[in-house]
Amino acid sequence: MKKILVIGSVALDTITTPTGSSKEVLGGSATYFSISASFFTQVNLVATVGRDFPDKHRSLIRSFGVDIKGLEAKEGRTFRWEGSYVDDLNCAKTIETQLNVFADFRPKIPEGYKNSRFIFLANIDPDLQLFILKQFKDNRFIGCDSMNYWIQNKGPALKRLMKKATFVFLNDAEARLFSGESNIMKAGKYLLSLGPRFAIIKRGEYGAMLFSKDKALLLTPAYLLETVCDPTGAGDTFAGGFMGYLARSEKIDDMTVRRALLHGSVMASFTVEDFSVNRFLKLKKKDIERRYDSFRKLTMA
Amino acid sequence: MKKILVIGSVALDTITTPTGSSKEVLGGSATYFSISASFFTQVNLVATVGRDFPDKHRSLIRSFGVDIKGLEAKEGRTFRWEGSYVDDLNCAKTIETQLNVFADFRPKIPEGYKNSRFIFLANIDPDLQLFILKQFKDNRFIGCDSMNYWIQNKGPALKRLMKKATFVFLNDAEARLFSGESNIMKAGKYLLSLGPRFAIIKRGEYGAMLFSKDKALLLTPAYLLETVCDPTGAGDTFAGGFMGYLARSEKIDDMTVRRALLHGSVMASFTVEDFSVNRFLKLKKKDIERRYDSFRKLTMA
Repeated sequence: MKKILVIGSVALDTITTPTGSSKEVLGGSATYFSISASFFTQVNLVATVGRDFPDKHRSLIRSFGVDIKGLEAKEGRTFRWEGSYVDDLNCAKTIETQLNVFADFRPKIPEGYKNSRFIFLANIDPDLQLFILKQFKDNRFIGCDSMNYWIQNKGPALKRLMKKATFVFLNDAEARLFSGESNIMKAGKYLLSLGPRFAIIKRGEYGAMLFSKDKALLLTPAYLLETVCDPTGAGDTFAGGFMGYLARSEKIDDMTVRRALLHGSVMASFTVEDFSVNRFLKLKKKDIERRYDSFRKLTMA
Repeated sequence: MKKILVIGSVALDTITTPTGSSKEVLGGSATYFSISASFFTQVNLVATVGRDFPDKHRSLIRSFGVDIKGLEAKEGRTFRWEGSYVDDLNCAKTIETQLNVFADFRPKIPEGYKNSRFIFLANIDPDLQLFILKQFKDNRFIGCDSMNYWIQNKGPALKRLMKKATFVFLNDAEARLFSGESNIMKAGKYLLSLGPRFAIIKRGEYGAMLFSKDKALLLTPAYLLETVCDPTGAGDTFAGGFMGYLARSEKIDDMTVRRALLHGSVMASFTVEDFSVNRFLKLKKKDIERRYDSFRKLTMA
């Protein structure tokens, strides 16, 4: 079993959606990624929280078999995010961001984590992502995420990062912004031109695209749900399912990467069915297999 | 070979897109549908034009083997539409609509056309669509399209029409409006509840969805293009490829309808590559097969 290491945020989220709302619930990119990937392989987590971080959340993450030695508790308050999807389920409106202890996040990777074959650098400052990468030997499979803010303010660092990445995950608006191309095919080719082996463009309820070797490799719709409760964390859950599936696979070729994309979509389709990571509490491996099978059937002609 | 009959508009379009513009070129729902379907089967066309309709356009439609006995020339000017996609390639902004002779369109179906097994009722007044249907015996495969205007102003007639339809084609905004459901899965189920055997929801650059027997049957992305020149007619071209493929098939079951959806998408992907129906002038059947194969590969995991 190859281990995955994720470096990102563990947060307390307050969220309003058309379905309801939830206050100070467990969130953060590293939380969603690690729990999603834990259904496929062993996961190590590196993040920082404040002294106010509830023990029950720590236990919850650990209950999925995630190793949280790298979850450092520091003096101060935990990162908090408040968002609303009332106007548009596809796009969160940020009401408030309190970085708190996350503002000074300078992760030191525990020695025992340094052998991880797969590393996911969740959305943080690309200079920090590059700093983290230096702590590893080459020959790792690196996944990285980013966001509009870094694209606009740290483009050169982000390009250096992508050169070192195996998998780049961006949503379509980010890919268009970064590439300056409104056509999504051209945007995908641009991402590949920066050096990663695969570029994955996420399109929310419209699915995802996988690019490799200067061409599109797979286009998938999203799994169709009748009720979307809370889209928070869908992107990180997707990345967790994608990299978790690959970490479990014997090799990384076009076919396994295609299947990984479907597994990422399936995991994302579960997480949006409930607030926070609640859906995973009752999720079984056979539920994943069943939805994967029905998803494949739904996309095959 | 089972013949298809299409009843709709033949128009002169003036179009501006980010790529360029074209003035008074051949357009109209029946034009796009019939030429697209002509690559699969024989097509009969019923529409009306004015005395100003150029002979070269008549010859062009006929050059695809489309029977235009039903293309009536009346005193007055041809239907004209002017639109722009400069702000959004996914959505036309109408600059001007001149119905002209199309305002009094009361089609009489030529006797020789009445044996058509497949009938496509393009987007016109649903009362008129119902009036046309009365001229046929039962046991036909009926496809129908509509638009926001009829949904808002002739909902009851549209519901009566859908009850008689085999295939309903709407785009996602129309399906949401008609059903009152923002969730597209629920919108699809609503359409099926009105009585058609299959409901097809078109999502432009995001692909299409096929619903049958109260469930989703197929989700497809759109074929990925690096350059979209002019999206006009993509929906009717899609319907033409879909119904043309089925008319050529021996039976209509879930599998053939799935494949029909992919063929519809492939035909739509060709038409948007050029203005008007220009792309079809140099299209070969083997181009269709080649793109269909590459599209299937792009969507299979």
